[in-house]
Amino acid sequence: MPVANLQDLFMETLKDVYYVEKKLVKELPKMIKKASSPQLKDAISGHLEETQIHVTRIEDIFTALNKKPVAKKCEALEGLLEEAEEVIEDVKDPKTLDAALISSAQTVEHYEIARYGTLARWAVELGHDDVTSILEETLAEEKAADSKLTKIAESAVNQAAAAA
Amino acid sequence: MPVANLQDLFMETLKDVYYVEKKLVKELPKMIKKASSPQLKDAISGHLEETQIHVTRIEDIFTALNKKPVAKKCEALEGLLEEAEEVIEDVKDPKTLDAALISSAQTVEHYEIARYGTLARWAVELGHDDVTSILEETLAEEKAADSKLTKIAESAVNQAAAAA
Repeated sequence: MPVANLQDLFMETLKDVYYVEKKLVKELPKMIKKASSPQLKDAISGHLEETQIHVTRIEDIFTALNKKPVAKKCEALEGLLEEAEEVIEDVKDPKTLDAALISSAQTVEHYEIARYGTLARWAVELGHDDVTSILEETLAEEKAADSKLTKIAESAVNQAAAAA
Repeated sequence: MPVANLQDLFMETLKDVYYVEKKLVKELPKMIKKASSPQLKDAISGHLEETQIHVTRIEDIFTALNKKPVAKKCEALEGLLEEAEEVIEDVKDPKTLDAALISSAQTVEHYEIARYGTLARWAVELGHDDVTSILEETLAEEKAADSKLTKIAESAVNQAAAAA
């Protein structure tokens, strides 16, 4: 797909995050099952609900730009998930697994923080004012999800894993 | 490689970031060549020098923990680089390419921010006090590199790409 300017790049990156959010709707329930800490299960469940909203928000953005929603396979997410699965296979202790799940989830959160941050700046530059606020809303939620995972790690999970 | 507790997980993740930093020492010069904006070239060159220091810092951490430095292939970074290469191939306009390079570089920065943030918290929990400060130093530099790329994007690169 040839990319001639920032508008094209914006659309290609939007297809990328659309793939990411839809894939995460399928992947997060597997993480909830693997988690032991009730706090961690709750946090991922809450983020799954947000992720479902993020999918519809991206569809709204495509619509606002008079485009049909299209997802493009995101090799970066595939790599992040492959690495997460490798670690999950290696960890047998459930408390250590919680620490590993938080660590993997945060690499995905940070991928999304990078992508939404970029998309929001590009939307400003391209004058897509209505779209910018939607992107910034999701960006704030991804940052909040990341901070919540840090708090859960620091409050209980890491200590339990260190003692395993 | 079986992972029994947080200490094992810490070592496995350290091998992961060791691979990442060594690979980036090879990859960043390619990005410098592809970039057109002198500001962007300078920023990546500066970060390449930092990355070389990050490699030696990780070796110091292995030594401090009485381990031999070992790198473990990072599937996440491979995915991030594969995606970056795909985009770079699709973009012919040099100004749009600068915007794409910043976007890709920031996904890598955020991967490192997630990893070093986690490693620093785990080091605290494990009582590796001397190692924590080294990890936090690198974490601060990754965050600064990310912020610098945002500034370059906002100050000139995005505007030039939007007008392409």
